Amino acid sequence: MTTSTGMLNLDGLYAARAREARVVGHWPDAAEGTISLAYGFAAPEKFPTDGLIAATTEVLAEDAARALNYGPTYPGLIQLIAGRLQARGIESSAERVLVTHGSSQAIGLLAQVFLDPGDVVIIEGPTFLGAVNSFREAGARLVTVNIDEHGLDPAVLEATLEALQRAGTPAKLLYTIPTFHNPSGTLMPPERRARLLALAAAHNLLILEDDAYGELYFDAPPPPSLAALDRAGVVVYIGTFSKILAPGVRIGFAHARPEIIQRLVMFKIEGGNGPYLTRVVERYCADGRLDEHITGLRQVYRQKAHVMFDALERELGDMLQYRKPDGGFFVWGRLGYGISAQALLHASQRLGVTFVPGSGFYADGQGGDTIRLAFSLQAEPAIVEGIRRLGMAARQVRAAGA
Amino acid sequence: MTTSTGMLNLDGLYAARAREARVVGHWPDAAEGTISLAYGFAAPEKFPTDGLIAATTEVLAEDAARALNYGPTYPGLIQLIAGRLQARGIESSAERVLVTHGSSQAIGLLAQVFLDPGDVVIIEGPTFLGAVNSFREAGARLVTVNIDEHGLDPAVLEATLEALQRAGTPAKLLYTIPTFHNPSGTLMPPERRARLLALAAAHNLLILEDDAYGELYFDAPPPPSLAALDRAGVVVYIGTFSKILAPGVRIGFAHARPEIIQRLVMFKIEGGNGPYLTRVVERYCADGRLDEHITGLRQVYRQKAHVMFDALERELGDMLQYRKPDGGFFVWGRLGYGISAQALLHASQRLGVTFVPGSGFYADGQGGDTIRLAFSLQAEPAIVEGIRRLGMAARQVRAAGA
Repeated sequence: MTTSTGMLNLDGLYAARAREARVVGHWPDAAEGTISLAYGFAAPEKFPTDGLIAATTEVLAEDAARALNYGPTYPGLIQLIAGRLQARGIESSAERVLVTHGSSQAIGLLAQVFLDPGDVVIIEGPTFLGAVNSFREAGARLVTVNIDEHGLDPAVLEATLEALQRAGTPAKLLYTIPTFHNPSGTLMPPERRARLLALAAAHNLLILEDDAYGELYFDAPPPPSLAALDRAGVVVYIGTFSKILAPGVRIGFAHARPEIIQRLVMFKIEGGNGPYLTRVVERYCADGRLDEHITGLRQVYRQKAHVMFDALERELGDMLQYRKPDGGFFVWGRLGYGISAQALLHASQRLGVTFVPGSGFYADGQGGDTIRLAFSLQAEPAIVEGIRRLGMAARQVRAAGA
Repeated sequence: MTTSTGMLNLDGLYAARAREARVVGHWPDAAEGTISLAYGFAAPEKFPTDGLIAATTEVLAEDAARALNYGPTYPGLIQLIAGRLQARGIESSAERVLVTHGSSQAIGLLAQVFLDPGDVVIIEGPTFLGAVNSFREAGARLVTVNIDEHGLDPAVLEATLEALQRAGTPAKLLYTIPTFHNPSGTLMPPERRARLLALAAAHNLLILEDDAYGELYFDAPPPPSLAALDRAGVVVYIGTFSKILAPGVRIGFAHARPEIIQRLVMFKIEGGNGPYLTRVVERYCADGRLDEHITGLRQVYRQKAHVMFDALERELGDMLQYRKPDGGFFVWGRLGYGISAQALLHASQRLGVTFVPGSGFYADGQGGDTIRLAFSLQAEPAIVEGIRRLGMAARQVRAAGA
């Protein structure tokens, strides 16, 4: 049963879930000469290249036979992660940690373990849509709860949970980024964290806490994570080495109750992450080297953030209202004077700077007057120049009355 | 709704597919002092440690900013794979290749793209059950077609396909290892390959060709792969760097029609393999280095195989009937004198050698008198000693009349 071209007709062979092809997103490159403030890329000047070369050389000199053959994720890396979580107040252990290919794989596996079609997932507005797409793929119904300057408001969440309960469609899962939120940079205060945990226990709601930025505070450490405060086993915690080491190594992890970890493993079809890169990363991170590295990162990102704050003050003034974040990678702002984010993006790209319009962080079409600016990637002079161009673009759009 | 322990009750929260936990297999370690002939591990003495250190150093010195930040699988690695496939007669290109975390991920993704519950998958008896488990997970019905000393017999396959057709349950997919088969070591001759492709086109059957060992021939290269002979687009080809470079880097790939690759990408939830390790592996392999390395591997595995053949002749004689393979990692044999593989395994383990009983390669319980011996991992003296112990064990079992 080949087609007229003599080729096997695949249409009848695809599984139901794969019948329609869709384009999977990727990172588009910024045009040559454009300063990208769009993505939360890590600061390349801080990549520990010498440390990774040394770790690679040591692992291969000492342990190539085990590092390069078949084997599971290196147990030493799992121990290292569990130890780091314990140091931050989370009751972790090796059986509570699964190493994944980036945190995106952990989130995707959680969607497979917890979501049947039609299940309700509560997401923040705005939020990191990369995660949300996994829930959508699993057929979940997304319900957005808007956050304020302190993140998710438990009172608003409670009202939503109760309305969903009354409608016979109780929420199963909440996806939240309580610490240096992406995109908004907000930091949820301790009392909201406690209230959120109580609500989750009362409503049988699983909390998926994404903590990609928690260690990258500028001055004071943030309050304990939801996972550290959790006494009822309602939190699954997602972490990553992307921001504290390097995104390119693709190492993330989930911390959860053992029975959840056991199920995540069932859906990680390729098995463990393998022994090689997990040994190299553990070797690099051990003996306090990662902590020292993170201390350096905090200074770099703090400095970049302040350079952006100053430039925004100078170049945009009251055309952009925003709250200075205390950590993370992003400035999130609301445009004044009726300036639309899309119009600003078009004008900006013509002037050689780019960012992500806020609508890219809402599952329900909000955010047309908001933007996210990443200060993480660019060197300080490029941040200054990028914001100068952005200011020019904003003045153009404002003058054009758009 | 917490349990009496105060912990959230998860039972009602799991998705249907995850309600029952199952234990996921891993590689058990052989006991201390035991010589393992069990798994198809690569020869550690051939791991290119210096080459990998050099490649790592070069990539990080020259290109850390791109290797360590976010990014897709390094396009140069995809080009290298497509080029290597072209050199072996397969019409490949970048859009026909997906790099995966080992070939097991490629097989798992294919199961997601092609299999609905109840779909019929034809597998060889014996076969590599690691792959087959992915089909089982997808709810497929497995139909075993036994192979002979030349691999799958198209006449037997045709009869099975027709019987399935008549029963109203036509087969959708065939999983085959035509070249240096795991576990049997068989090599399918060219005329069977041609007949198999014609059958697949006539029956609308997709062929999943697993070619982990095709480059590891001892003397003469094998006939062209099914993918190289395929004119009707019926073959999806699965390859891996595990046997030709190192299992620990976890790099496999699928070569298929672009519309299939596009769908595999949809289910690779973590995105690409990332830029770092894919750049390092490409750098190591480029400029003919991988080809040179493979030439060396062929000699090593050929030599190990011959050491095992000689030892088997000496130590087991007619207690094990087998056909000498022309490549790959394994000797597959049938035990004589009513010796059962399980009894032999128990006796062997007491004497300090281990292998995999043949029943581990059948989905339907056959193979109780067959065993697989891997010569790939152990050094030559250990192969000699391992087979000596195996012979002792076989004589014990035979004498005991088991």
